[in-house]
Amino acid sequence: MTVADVRTQDRYPTRKGTESALLDRVDPVVWPGVSAGPASEDELARHDANGFHIVPGLLKPAEVQEYWQELERLSDDPQVRADERTVVEKESDEVRSLFEVHRTSEMVAELVRDERLLDRARQILGSDVYVHQSRINYMPGFRGNGFYWHSDFETWHAEDGLPAPRAVSVSIALTDNFPFNGGLMLMPGAHKTYVSCAGRTPEDNYKSSLKEQKVGVPAEDDIRKLAYEHGIEQFTGPAGSALWFDSNSMHGSGNNITPFPRSNIFIVFNSVDNAPVEPFSADKRRPEFIAARDTTPVRR
Amino acid sequence: MTVADVRTQDRYPTRKGTESALLDRVDPVVWPGVSAGPASEDELARHDANGFHIVPGLLKPAEVQEYWQELERLSDDPQVRADERTVVEKESDEVRSLFEVHRTSEMVAELVRDERLLDRARQILGSDVYVHQSRINYMPGFRGNGFYWHSDFETWHAEDGLPAPRAVSVSIALTDNFPFNGGLMLMPGAHKTYVSCAGRTPEDNYKSSLKEQKVGVPAEDDIRKLAYEHGIEQFTGPAGSALWFDSNSMHGSGNNITPFPRSNIFIVFNSVDNAPVEPFSADKRRPEFIAARDTTPVRR
Repeated sequence: MTVADVRTQDRYPTRKGTESALLDRVDPVVWPGVSAGPASEDELARHDANGFHIVPGLLKPAEVQEYWQELERLSDDPQVRADERTVVEKESDEVRSLFEVHRTSEMVAELVRDERLLDRARQILGSDVYVHQSRINYMPGFRGNGFYWHSDFETWHAEDGLPAPRAVSVSIALTDNFPFNGGLMLMPGAHKTYVSCAGRTPEDNYKSSLKEQKVGVPAEDDIRKLAYEHGIEQFTGPAGSALWFDSNSMHGSGNNITPFPRSNIFIVFNSVDNAPVEPFSADKRRPEFIAARDTTPVRR
Repeated sequence: MTVADVRTQDRYPTRKGTESALLDRVDPVVWPGVSAGPASEDELARHDANGFHIVPGLLKPAEVQEYWQELERLSDDPQVRADERTVVEKESDEVRSLFEVHRTSEMVAELVRDERLLDRARQILGSDVYVHQSRINYMPGFRGNGFYWHSDFETWHAEDGLPAPRAVSVSIALTDNFPFNGGLMLMPGAHKTYVSCAGRTPEDNYKSSLKEQKVGVPAEDDIRKLAYEHGIEQFTGPAGSALWFDSNSMHGSGNNITPFPRSNIFIVFNSVDNAPVEPFSADKRRPEFIAARDTTPVRR
């Protein structure tokens, strides 16, 4: 078997038109290779066991304020609103996500290079890393829509061609996350199971899937099994807290009828040794602002 | 002014076609008159200050099991499903609420007479009481819809003619209430403010309002003011826990995408001294299975 074969072999089949299935993850969660960094042994052990860990106060209050202002500046900019990288809420026409913000905002570009992010991502993935995706998410108060249960990796594998779940996401809260304003729910430990989904990817799926996912949605029986086995935990905490979670974490969020909006910066680091190949279950690649193809390592 | 004038005077105007407004509540929350009962001084004081209090373990686990079986028996009964007192979920056709269960189920009738319920309701309302409304609610997993912010009293005043907020509800959890499966949110202290709502009541409003409320909905600015002043708390706890809440509590619930359904028995006790008159803001009364007119006191 050549190197090319190994790279393109599909160890995480999904959307092949067959029934959904629960498969074992065959890759590590925390990879060996980079020992120095801000994450403690205990944090790495929890990340390995649960598929996520929380770093309270990753951003200081003054920094939260600055990033919040940056979000407002970007959302108010008519050019940004008109940009294809901006996703607008289905019903209300409000800005929901700004993609590729590490290229459109110098502040976010700096944050990506910050040792608090970069070095922890390197520790977890055991290699140099690049940004597969970045965005700022905004869930308004009163009518914020949640996101049904899913694994990000399932999509990144099917539609972007990431061979393995050797990617980690960090979600930095720019607002307080209460239990009741739509904070992310995760199933601790479920990241070691890969949920292969039924169906097939329709053309240009990303145009609607960024608002509401229709394929790559785990079957209810599979979600029930995982939830009864692993339980559910929620990411709560004051603004500035960061959630680091594995690309194959099973997660979702409820809606938000409270007046308290929920906003966060979301960065996905992928290992340079897990560079994307062709999509495993889609006819064509998603645009690069959603799924980068440039794997140049991030350097300080 | 005659007695009749006092009874029908509208001290809580709403849906008069004018702007929404925040008015002061002019009635007590905990009424003097009945001192003996299961509620402690502390519980009554908290009920007065917050507009609600929680009684953990009001039902024992074996009782929860019995009521759960009763709920299943009723939901599975084709005659009950076809009954006008049964409300079915908008999208999924699943049973959402069974009304007037204290008349259709002998078990619930007994529960209403149980000293754990009856005597506490008498303590809070300071008089004999009767059941204004009873129901079993069922919020399914995966696709349970929540209920937007509202005060029950606003509707009971506008559509049922209850003159004053001298009514108290008890919600008894038949399933575990987690922070993330759509548990009731309340604003502690907001029950002392009456939110007068804009709009007018359409004819037969109850046929749709039991699924999704369109009038009697507080303005976003009013909800924001109340939430920033009072904050939000959530009713969580194991099955068997009971939430007692004032009829003018501002409350709502998010949706439920978890596999864990949420079910509860809901009984509204009204003071016999607060008997319904004609609706204050609707052309005709709602049916008696939603709003009782028989004010015969409940007796053990």
